[in-house]
Amino acid sequence: MTYVNTGSFVTQPGHRDAVVAILTRHSPQLAASGCLSYEVGVDEDHPDTVFVAETWTSASAHEQSLQLESTREAIAEAMPLLTGEMTQQHFTSVGSPLQD
Amino acid sequence: MTYVNTGSFVTQPGHRDAVVAILTRHSPQLAASGCLSYEVGVDEDHPDTVFVAETWTSASAHEQSLQLESTREAIAEAMPLLTGEMTQQHFTSVGSPLQD
Repeated sequence: MTYVNTGSFVTQPGHRDAVVAILTRHSPQLAASGCLSYEVGVDEDHPDTVFVAETWTSASAHEQSLQLESTREAIAEAMPLLTGEMTQQHFTSVGSPLQD
Repeated sequence: MTYVNTGSFVTQPGHRDAVVAILTRHSPQLAASGCLSYEVGVDEDHPDTVFVAETWTSASAHEQSLQLESTREAIAEAMPLLTGEMTQQHFTSVGSPLQD
């Protein structure tokens, strides 16, 4: 069942776009690991926050992706640019009103 | 640019699945209004919470969908089953690591 992970990261002032650049860097490994979608975004009301919304084939696919070299490198690169303030929600999708 | 809306709703005890049923009811109007995806889900660690993650063609498409008759009916039907405790995040997607 599709696993959904959403969240936000507060960045050091002025470093939002640098974190966006790290998170949007093309990573073919993600799709190969079961990542179905991975949106990275911003909101003008929160100028130092980066948002993500990801869907995965399963919770374990998401868990395993955290061990990918590309993921570990991205986390190590982004970490110094973050304040540590973050939010996260995750759930298992059970349906959609777009489907019969 | 793709607009992403995510959130959660705490339900009255035991009414989670009723709210899931309302939110997953097939609504062709949503796709016609610019809804690209609409995942409704649950998490075993939060037995009385329903989660959603939606993507839209634009923020205004999402805004206008709230006026659809099917949306207004769903909100009216779900409201008595909710405690009022909820979370919401929204953002404009600026990219994805799945894309070149």
